[in-house]
Amino acid sequence: MFKGLSAFPLTPFIDGSPDEKGFLRILRRLTEAKVDSLGVLGSTGSYAYMTREQRGRIARLAVENAGNIPVMVCVGAVSTDEVLRLADDAQAAGAGALLLPPVSYQALHDDEVYGLFETVARHASVPLCVYDNPGTTHFTFSDELHGKIAALPGVHSIKIPGVPADAEAASARVRNLRNRLPSDVTIGISGDSSAATGLIAGCEVWYSVCGGLFPAVAKKITEAAAAGDHTAVRAQNERLSPLWALFGQHGGSFRVISAAAGLLGLTDVNCLPRPLLPLRADQLNEVRRVISDLELA
Amino acid sequence: MFKGLSAFPLTPFIDGSPDEKGFLRILRRLTEAKVDSLGVLGSTGSYAYMTREQRGRIARLAVENAGNIPVMVCVGAVSTDEVLRLADDAQAAGAGALLLPPVSYQALHDDEVYGLFETVARHASVPLCVYDNPGTTHFTFSDELHGKIAALPGVHSIKIPGVPADAEAASARVRNLRNRLPSDVTIGISGDSSAATGLIAGCEVWYSVCGGLFPAVAKKITEAAAAGDHTAVRAQNERLSPLWALFGQHGGSFRVISAAAGLLGLTDVNCLPRPLLPLRADQLNEVRRVISDLELA
Repeated sequence: MFKGLSAFPLTPFIDGSPDEKGFLRILRRLTEAKVDSLGVLGSTGSYAYMTREQRGRIARLAVENAGNIPVMVCVGAVSTDEVLRLADDAQAAGAGALLLPPVSYQALHDDEVYGLFETVARHASVPLCVYDNPGTTHFTFSDELHGKIAALPGVHSIKIPGVPADAEAASARVRNLRNRLPSDVTIGISGDSSAATGLIAGCEVWYSVCGGLFPAVAKKITEAAAAGDHTAVRAQNERLSPLWALFGQHGGSFRVISAAAGLLGLTDVNCLPRPLLPLRADQLNEVRRVISDLELA
Repeated sequence: MFKGLSAFPLTPFIDGSPDEKGFLRILRRLTEAKVDSLGVLGSTGSYAYMTREQRGRIARLAVENAGNIPVMVCVGAVSTDEVLRLADDAQAAGAGALLLPPVSYQALHDDEVYGLFETVARHASVPLCVYDNPGTTHFTFSDELHGKIAALPGVHSIKIPGVPADAEAASARVRNLRNRLPSDVTIGISGDSSAATGLIAGCEVWYSVCGGLFPAVAKKITEAAAAGDHTAVRAQNERLSPLWALFGQHGGSFRVISAAAGLLGLTDVNCLPRPLLPLRADQLNEVRRVISDLELA
């Protein structure tokens, strides 16, 4: 399941709780587009804002409605013991894989992050994907640590946060990491604006927020990459640059995709978990314009 | 309750859960020393590693065993709705005040942090203290935002992370903040190594991790500060410099104080919540030496 397009749907909120109907409307777009896998309760899936019970319900809903598409569930938490409980819940819900970020409160040392992954890998009975996202976890992996964790039985993929914009630098970055990994561990790119560069540089998966709402355009990129058609990858990516620019303006994809889900009528326009606030009217208009120009609706 | 020495006890862990007996042993040192208030479930109180139920139990234990010393309870969480539930729990336990950090997952904007404090201040029936700790929350307050939040009814104190080492710069920093605040809102210093400088610069409270394990030495500093005896404040602070140096070496007070609690026989030597790991044997020896040299036991 760690290949192609892994779509990361939003978990929308309404009145302080997950909007399950809205979530199912978003999920349906992804199953109809036949994405390769689903990554639920990721950062865009608002896991950090949800109780254990809410996370369990969303995991179950996702699996029950995913048809034969495998579902990866993020089990991130500050406490290792809470991660283990979340892993149990996700497996009981039918998750095909677990996504694990080293969420920190007190800054973590390398041996502590290794210990976390070792403990969870030993506990879990489904494959594990390492979630490397320093922007939210405030932990920075070295390639050496990635290599050590990837050697643990059960670890099958690494979700990296992005690659340098320069094609040669991106290739070198992916190659250096690859050289540290067992051959059966894939590298997946996230950070949607660097997806094309990452796929051309050799990443096998796109862990995609864009693909969690706009699966058709995202699939064009992963399918072109799988076919080795780098010209098409670059062209599709170039076409989406107004969307990447919006992500850049709003500190990442989360706030923009939440607004877009509302504009598409899938969720409330204000579907972020508190304390996060929705975009202003002028910012919403800009998102509306990009959706229309790029024919994303 | 927002004056003098506010002692922040550790919540020690054992076998993946809060060590309630160890917590009570630590608490007893503080009540016997007659600290001015208690700040439980702060960063050193491991709140970020605990479930809602565990936090509720520790809050109740603290209030039940604090005698007539007022207890402030930290209610930090990523989700505003979870903060409100924690505030209800803390108030039901008998908390005299709530400590609220703007814990972030997605980076927060100023208006989102203001909205969080406005919502909680409206909801709560006991005073609120603003917990400004960018090292763990990854949110940086401006003095302007502090002023806006401090004007909310119910907000009574601000816990600041530290002041510049230079006495004049520290005075200017406290004065600039004070000028933004209503007269009934106190400023409390944390970051133990800058406590003396902060108290001399005009902070009315020391929110103290050191005082959460070594209340006698901490009280000497706050009592000297209250008496305006800056020479004594400086001398006591200078005497503790080996302890501050240890905090600096280990990225803050948390890991050192946890080790010290173990060395004093109050908790297991390994009393940190997973994934955090205890200090190595050589580091423990160094902590043991400082405790002995400074006669802290």
